[in-house]
Amino acid sequence: MTAQSAHLDDELNLKALSFHAQPRPGKIGTLVTKPAATQQDLALAYTPGVAEPVRRIHTDPDLAYAYTNKGNLVAVITDGTAVLGLGNVGPLAGKPVMEGKAVLFKRFADIDCFDIEVQAETPEAFIETVVRIAPTFGGINLEDIAAPHCFEIEQALIDELDIPVFHDDQHGTAIILAAGLLNALELQGKTLEEAQIVILGAGAAGIASARLLLALGAHRDHLLCVDRQGVIHLGRPDLNPYKFGVAVETNKRTLTEAMQGADVFIGLSGPDLVTPEMIASMAPRPIVFALSNPVPEIRPAAALAVRSDLVMATGRSDYPNQVNNVLGFPFIFRGALDVRASRINQAMRIAAVEALRDLAREPVPQAVLDAYGLNALSFGPDYIIPKPFDPRLRERVAGAVAQTAIASGVARLPLSD
Amino acid sequence: MTAQSAHLDDELNLKALSFHAQPRPGKIGTLVTKPAATQQDLALAYTPGVAEPVRRIHTDPDLAYAYTNKGNLVAVITDGTAVLGLGNVGPLAGKPVMEGKAVLFKRFADIDCFDIEVQAETPEAFIETVVRIAPTFGGINLEDIAAPHCFEIEQALIDELDIPVFHDDQHGTAIILAAGLLNALELQGKTLEEAQIVILGAGAAGIASARLLLALGAHRDHLLCVDRQGVIHLGRPDLNPYKFGVAVETNKRTLTEAMQGADVFIGLSGPDLVTPEMIASMAPRPIVFALSNPVPEIRPAAALAVRSDLVMATGRSDYPNQVNNVLGFPFIFRGALDVRASRINQAMRIAAVEALRDLAREPVPQAVLDAYGLNALSFGPDYIIPKPFDPRLRERVAGAVAQTAIASGVARLPLSD
Repeated sequence: MTAQSAHLDDELNLKALSFHAQPRPGKIGTLVTKPAATQQDLALAYTPGVAEPVRRIHTDPDLAYAYTNKGNLVAVITDGTAVLGLGNVGPLAGKPVMEGKAVLFKRFADIDCFDIEVQAETPEAFIETVVRIAPTFGGINLEDIAAPHCFEIEQALIDELDIPVFHDDQHGTAIILAAGLLNALELQGKTLEEAQIVILGAGAAGIASARLLLALGAHRDHLLCVDRQGVIHLGRPDLNPYKFGVAVETNKRTLTEAMQGADVFIGLSGPDLVTPEMIASMAPRPIVFALSNPVPEIRPAAALAVRSDLVMATGRSDYPNQVNNVLGFPFIFRGALDVRASRINQAMRIAAVEALRDLAREPVPQAVLDAYGLNALSFGPDYIIPKPFDPRLRERVAGAVAQTAIASGVARLPLSD
Repeated sequence: MTAQSAHLDDELNLKALSFHAQPRPGKIGTLVTKPAATQQDLALAYTPGVAEPVRRIHTDPDLAYAYTNKGNLVAVITDGTAVLGLGNVGPLAGKPVMEGKAVLFKRFADIDCFDIEVQAETPEAFIETVVRIAPTFGGINLEDIAAPHCFEIEQALIDELDIPVFHDDQHGTAIILAAGLLNALELQGKTLEEAQIVILGAGAAGIASARLLLALGAHRDHLLCVDRQGVIHLGRPDLNPYKFGVAVETNKRTLTEAMQGADVFIGLSGPDLVTPEMIASMAPRPIVFALSNPVPEIRPAAALAVRSDLVMATGRSDYPNQVNNVLGFPFIFRGALDVRASRINQAMRIAAVEALRDLAREPVPQAVLDAYGLNALSFGPDYIIPKPFDPRLRERVAGAVAQTAIASGVARLPLSD
C-alpha cells in the first residue's frame, strides 16, 4: 500500500465513522407506515382494534401476510463468524454490516429488514435460534457466517422453514459472478462447458460459485478449486464434505500449476495472491475475476500489463465490471416475496444469473449513464455486468425469479400485475 | 352485550382489518436514517466504508452505541402465550400487537423497535433465544407472556443481560395504576398505608401491582389478592411461589367477603365479575379501578349508581381516568436508554409512578385540551391520571427514570442537556 492510498483509506475511514455516528448513531430505524397521530388512529393500531387481526391470524396463519408486515420483512442475520474480510469479530461488531445490508434491501427493493446479531455457541444453537424467531419474518438472509458451518446452517434452515432462506455470501456472490462470467466467455469466444476454470478460495463464496458453475454447465474436470493448501484434489486427506464435493483427480498441486493454460481465474480469496507471471501463463483471451475486496488478488493494471487480451472484473466500484452483491439479493428476495415462495431454489438462482447476463447485453438507458457520469456504455470488455443503479434491475431480476418460483412449484401466490 | 354495542364492535373490527391491510399489510417497516442515494453514500453505508466501524466495535464493544442503532433499539418480544385477553394464540397471531407496540414506542418516545415473535417450546427455550439475539438491542420489552412463566422469564433475562428488560404487562400496568391510585387516595382522604385493598386477578399485572403497591407502602395484611379460586390466603395448598408471595392470613374466602369494607378495588381480571352489591358494601369514599378490557369488571354507570362517593378508573379511553400503559413504557425506556441503564430497577419504576402522579396534579396545558377536544380539565375525580397525548410526559417521566437510574447506580452515561 502506498502512502497516498493509505491516506485515502484514512480519509474514507474517518468519513465512514462520522457517517455512522452523526447526527444519530446507526443507519436504520422504525418507519411507522400507518396513521398514528390521534387517539382514533391508536384505537385501530393498538387496543381495542388490534384484537380482530389477532383473532383472524389465529384462525388462519396465512392472514399474517394480510395484516402484518411479515410478507415484506427479511431478517439479515449473522453470528459474526466471518464479517467482511475481518474474520470472527463476533455478532455485535457485525452490526454495522447488517444495518448496511438492511439499507440496501430497502433502497433497492423496498424490502423491510431487521438486522439480528446472534450470540450462538454452536451452529446448532444458531439454527435453533433462527427457527424460533422465524415466525416474525417473510424471509431469512444469512450473512457473514464462516465456512464450512454456513453450508449446514443454510441447509438446515431451508429444510426446517417454509420461508426463503438465502446465504448471500454464498449465492449472491456466485450469481453475480456467474452472470458476468457468461458474458466474458461470450466476448472471448469461449464456452462454460469447455473452459478451464480456476477458483482460488474455498470459503462460502468459492464453494457456492463452483457448485453454481457446475450447475450451469461447467465441466467438473475442468474446474480446479484452490485453497491455502493448494489444489483441492481427490487425493487430499484433509477435505471437509464441501471441499470434497468440488475435488477432482488432477496432477496439479499449486496455484501456479493450476493457472497454466487456464481460461478463467476467479479469485475469492485475499489480496495480491496472484502474480503477473501466473496471468501470463493463462490460455489466450483469458478471463480474470479478482474479487478479493478491497485489495484484489491482482490489480487490473498489473494484469492488463502482461495480457492485453484479458477481460477482467473486480469487487471494487472504481474499476469496470464490479461484481457487487447488491445486483442480486434485493431483487432475488423481491421476486421470492412477491409470489410468497417457500424457498429460493437452484432454478431461481439460475434465473437471476440469466436475467443479469441478458440485461448487460442490452442498450444502457440514459438514467444509468447519468447516475454514473458516463457518456456511453455498451456491452464489451468494460461492461459485462449491469450497474447497481440500473432501474431495470428490479423488474428484470425480481420478475425472472418470481416466474421461476411459480414454474418450479414453490410459489404460493400468482404474480400480480 | 347489546345489539348496538355489537354493531359498533363489528364496525371497529372492519375498520381495524382495513387499517392493518391497506395500502400495504402491517404497521411498521424500515426507516433508512442516512443518505443512500448515490454510489458515494453506499460506499460509506456498506463496503468499503462499513469496515472501520466494525473494527472499532470489535476493539471496544461499547462503540456499538456510537456507530449503530443498538442504543435506541428495543425488541418487543413475545411467545404468544397471553395475547391481549385472547390467551395462548401463539407467536404469529401476536404479531399485530407487537407491531402496534412498536408504533407506540416510536410515536411517543422516538424509540426504534423490532417486533420479534418467538416460537419457544418452553420458558427456558424462550429465555435462551432472547439472550442469543440480545446483542442486537439496547433494551428488551417482554410482551403478552403468560403468568406464572413471565416472572421467571423476566428475572432470568434481567440476571443474564446488561440491557434493560421490562415486562410491560406486569410493570407497565402496575406503574400507571399505582400513579392513579395515589391520586385517588389523596382525593378520597385516604392513605396507601391504611387502605384496605382488593386486587382481583393474579396474573402478570395482578401480581406485579400487588408487589409495587407493597413497595410503595401498602400494608401486607390490608392487601387481598383474589384469583378464580377466591382469596389468596396462606392456608391455600395450590399457590405457586408468586401467589404465595402475596398471600395473607385472613378469614375471608370470596370476592364478596373481600369487598366488604374495602377502600380500594383493583380489577385485572375479566368482564362483569363485580356486582353493584359488592360496590355498595365497600367502605365510605371507595376507589374502583375496573381495568379489564374492553369490558370492565363493572361499568362506571353501574358502580356510580350505587356509590356516588366513588373515584373510578377503567382501561378504556371512552371513560375518564384511563389506565393506559402507553403512559409508561415509551418514557420509561426513553429514560433508561438515555443514560444507558443496565436495568430498570424498582427505584426507577417508583420514579415513574411519582412523575405520573405529580403530573396529573398540575394545570393542564391547552395542547392537551385541544388533543382531546376538552374545554377544561383539572385534578379531581375525573382526572387522576395524565392523558397519553400530554407533551410533558416525555420529559417528566423519562427524566425522572433517567435521574433515578443515575442515583441508583445503574446508569452508564450522565444525563445530557
